[in-house]
Amino acid sequence: MSAAVVEDLRVDLERLKSTLIELSQIGFNDADKGVYRIGFTPADMEARRWLMDLLDDEGFAPSMDGAGNVYGRYGPEGKPTVTLGSHLDSVPAGGMFDGSLGVVAALEVLRVLKAAGTELELPVELVASAEEEGRYGGMLGAQAISGQLTPEMLRLAHDADGNRLSDAMEAAGLDPMGPLEARRSPASMRAFLELHVEQGPVLEKTDKSIGVVDTIAGVFKWIVHLKGKADHAGTSPMNMRSDAFMGLADFAHEIPRIIEENGTDRSRLTVGKAELRPGNPHTIPGEVMFTLVGRDSNLGTMRELGDACRRTLSAIARRHGLMFEYEQISWLEPVDCSVEIVELLESKARKAGLSFERMPSGAGHDTQFMAKMTSAGMLFVPSVGGVSHAPDEWTHWHDVEIGANLLLSAALELAR
Amino acid sequence: MSAAVVEDLRVDLERLKSTLIELSQIGFNDADKGVYRIGFTPADMEARRWLMDLLDDEGFAPSMDGAGNVYGRYGPEGKPTVTLGSHLDSVPAGGMFDGSLGVVAALEVLRVLKAAGTELELPVELVASAEEEGRYGGMLGAQAISGQLTPEMLRLAHDADGNRLSDAMEAAGLDPMGPLEARRSPASMRAFLELHVEQGPVLEKTDKSIGVVDTIAGVFKWIVHLKGKADHAGTSPMNMRSDAFMGLADFAHEIPRIIEENGTDRSRLTVGKAELRPGNPHTIPGEVMFTLVGRDSNLGTMRELGDACRRTLSAIARRHGLMFEYEQISWLEPVDCSVEIVELLESKARKAGLSFERMPSGAGHDTQFMAKMTSAGMLFVPSVGGVSHAPDEWTHWHDVEIGANLLLSAALELAR
Repeated sequence: MSAAVVEDLRVDLERLKSTLIELSQIGFNDADKGVYRIGFTPADMEARRWLMDLLDDEGFAPSMDGAGNVYGRYGPEGKPTVTLGSHLDSVPAGGMFDGSLGVVAALEVLRVLKAAGTELELPVELVASAEEEGRYGGMLGAQAISGQLTPEMLRLAHDADGNRLSDAMEAAGLDPMGPLEARRSPASMRAFLELHVEQGPVLEKTDKSIGVVDTIAGVFKWIVHLKGKADHAGTSPMNMRSDAFMGLADFAHEIPRIIEENGTDRSRLTVGKAELRPGNPHTIPGEVMFTLVGRDSNLGTMRELGDACRRTLSAIARRHGLMFEYEQISWLEPVDCSVEIVELLESKARKAGLSFERMPSGAGHDTQFMAKMTSAGMLFVPSVGGVSHAPDEWTHWHDVEIGANLLLSAALELAR
Repeated sequence: MSAAVVEDLRVDLERLKSTLIELSQIGFNDADKGVYRIGFTPADMEARRWLMDLLDDEGFAPSMDGAGNVYGRYGPEGKPTVTLGSHLDSVPAGGMFDGSLGVVAALEVLRVLKAAGTELELPVELVASAEEEGRYGGMLGAQAISGQLTPEMLRLAHDADGNRLSDAMEAAGLDPMGPLEARRSPASMRAFLELHVEQGPVLEKTDKSIGVVDTIAGVFKWIVHLKGKADHAGTSPMNMRSDAFMGLADFAHEIPRIIEENGTDRSRLTVGKAELRPGNPHTIPGEVMFTLVGRDSNLGTMRELGDACRRTLSAIARRHGLMFEYEQISWLEPVDCSVEIVELLESKARKAGLSFERMPSGAGHDTQFMAKMTSAGMLFVPSVGGVSHAPDEWTHWHDVEIGANLLLSAALELAR
């Protein structure tokens, strides 16, 4: 087969589309039109069996590992794989593209290669990963493959209601310690590529078809307490108050300045949750608890943002006569995608005449763990209105086609 | 009796103190050390019967009107009364001074006058008013006396849990329409004087013994909605957000400026309650609901503050791409105390060499309804730490003595 013929390979959008729609019926809830395939639930396991049946019917040698990750493959045995994929599980009331698109696009790549009888140097592999969305912590399948798990983590993992991961896995017919067996040797994988919906507004607003992800942003989460004095809102003059909410308001007002001075256009600082106590209209809030989530794709910048928030909060607390405490609930460092993969995706996109943007991923993805064991990278397709994790999540089919063709083209380059 | 002797009359602090402490045991809760004498509950009615027994034993001709207000008197019959008093009911877990002090100080005035055999031109009357604290709307006794009630108001009144005032009154052995019978003709009352704890920090912080109240501040309450878009906090760049909470924060940050430009040192603007939706640390708050309570002692200033808040919120909503709506839940106009009473209290305070401050009342009081029918005024004594509506509400006994003596002296001036 000549190089020219290989470069002419294209995905079949109608086939991809009908497979994706078929998958979206598994766990579909007619009441809210959402997909409910929460990790290790019957609907999630049904989707995995459905995929294995499909892979089997089409001759892609399916298997499931101890974490519930489903594999399929096309190409020679005994060589490092060029692995493509994403996750099959969903959030509650999720959309039909998040995760699923990356799995179905990988399947479409296998189908195209097989239909063309393409001869490969390395096998192209599909992986449909398990429990990415985080009911029990998230990215469990990718952590298992990349060897990040310990028996203790598996024993302790539970959801927000206290239900244990081990019970959910047993109910799904899986061995709760099975994820330890799912580890792959780095030598067994040449590269990992994940196609995913952006879940944000950037590509749509900048009119780009493709996002080439260079970093999965790091994230820190603080719980901040400001404590003042809960006085009567009528009898306390403005200049005799210790109003904890006014401290929070002043801090939030400073967020744009903090980013201008210490961050970049990749920085995010968000107050998503706040509780005023006692929460009475006629009482000055004596106490406020709020969450602060910070993100950046550079570790040093993340540290500077955290420092600046701490200094700003201290100064505001002094100004308002408040006590300031915070607890850092989590700190995840940014993860760089492989330079080799970023450059490959960009060069393929450029060659195809696509309008693309190099960008960070603000959300977490399997790729951030796969990057610990192999050359890993991601490509984004636009999300209409930036919506995700909701029934009205959507990506235009022409963008799906562009993304899947870029995945095919990059996989071919790596596998030939 | 000569004027010199009359001017020498002084309250007996020990007697006042022991009566106040005795009263504080009625409805006392040992677990949280709070007073629970919510209007028309058994503890509230027990306090009223206790007071009537005391008035009867000491010859002050007790009576209870149809609203549950308890009266006692000393002096000639058939003439307009110089009425002194406050309320006997408390908030849940209240303190021992709020309301009770004004009632017990009035009783002490009667006792002093009777013990001295003082001859008066007009009778001095005690009133212990009913349901001032607001379980069913508040200041019910004073509204009844000043003729502000209608049968419909009495039928519809209920507490926050839907319990009806009429049921509470029946359970207390009172006729639910009885408050309509409690109305007094303006000709029957020469003046009304209320001694009350400040419930704020001003007197303590300015080192004054007495506050002479010239106005009961007006108050408005708004419920404000700001609506933007609830996006993923990681994937949405700062400049592509419609963050409703950032709109609230910017508004709260402008409150000092709004008061500087449109208000006075008597103005108050308070955000006491706020709800962020969805309230997830990793999601941009797409919606925020908050309360805004404004107060001032001048009607024009109240209107200007309201206008300025509306303009500021509109501008901020435009800046952040938010929808802005508000509902004015209540609007109570400021009520002036009688100039005659204010000047009388100040001249008596000046003559006694007291350090006093003319001030507004930021909280509502019976006086604001009594002012509709007679020359009404209030005097405040300092609240330690500004605390009220809590078990640790406290007023130093030497301040209680100063306040009660000023009440006695003003009442004498009016009644002789």
